[in-house]
Amino acid sequence: MDTKFSTAIHMLILISEAKAPMTSEQIAGSVGTNPSYIRKIAGLLKKAEIIESRQGKGGFSLLRRGDELTLFQIYCAAEETEGVHLFDIHRNPNDRCIVGRNIQPTLGGMFRGIEEKAEQELMRQTLQSCMDVMRENIRREQM
Amino acid sequence: MDTKFSTAIHMLILISEAKAPMTSEQIAGSVGTNPSYIRKIAGLLKKAEIIESRQGKGGFSLLRRGDELTLFQIYCAAEETEGVHLFDIHRNPNDRCIVGRNIQPTLGGMFRGIEEKAEQELMRQTLQSCMDVMRENIRREQM
Repeated sequence: MDTKFSTAIHMLILISEAKAPMTSEQIAGSVGTNPSYIRKIAGLLKKAEIIESRQGKGGFSLLRRGDELTLFQIYCAAEETEGVHLFDIHRNPNDRCIVGRNIQPTLGGMFRGIEEKAEQELMRQTLQSCMDVMRENIRREQM
Repeated sequence: MDTKFSTAIHMLILISEAKAPMTSEQIAGSVGTNPSYIRKIAGLLKKAEIIESRQGKGGFSLLRRGDELTLFQIYCAAEETEGVHLFDIHRNPNDRCIVGRNIQPTLGGMFRGIEEKAEQELMRQTLQSCMDVMRENIRREQM
């Protein structure tokens, strides 16, 4: 289980929606984890210039508009990566075999194409679209 | 590194292209692994009715046409899964918080949508399209 990405989105929704600045302890209480894990994710989001600590006021604030902050940016920040990696390729195919010699470039290109589709979807969605979907869920819950 | 999927594709190209039946030992020599790993993947591909052992003749044969065998079918067989799983969601959000209560259904639906895009790409590609890409790579290598 790697929940850094979902935790980062959860945190950013709280930071975006909270009327008063929220501390790591308060965010941890909503996410269901410990404050040190929240501070770790906050450090990654700060490094990517998505949030900042509110000096002297406690808590965090968003440095970008929700509709300009894509899930791809949040994913890359939380996972410390530059893209989605879905499939590994075996490392030692035999290059004296014509299939062995050509399998890595062949699958490398095809796998990257599939990973790019997932990346494009992550770029299409924003923190704002998460909040819109959540609001719609809440509206239905209350009906 | 999980290379069951790429190994399965490599094996299936060999099985499809070989003029004489290939044994696990010969396939392992091209993939660059040991025969027992090849037999393990072969077992998964047999279970999914993608290949069969050639009784009394040694080696394996394909049970489907290359242009009807999608990468999604190969992926599901090799990974023993029913779909692509990209993102985990934290398990214990606080349901006394409105964000905590709604984060799982919100992200669950959005994440599944992104995973489905990757699945659709895997369904669009076939063993035949891998072989076509490989043939094009080989042609360029020889120019």
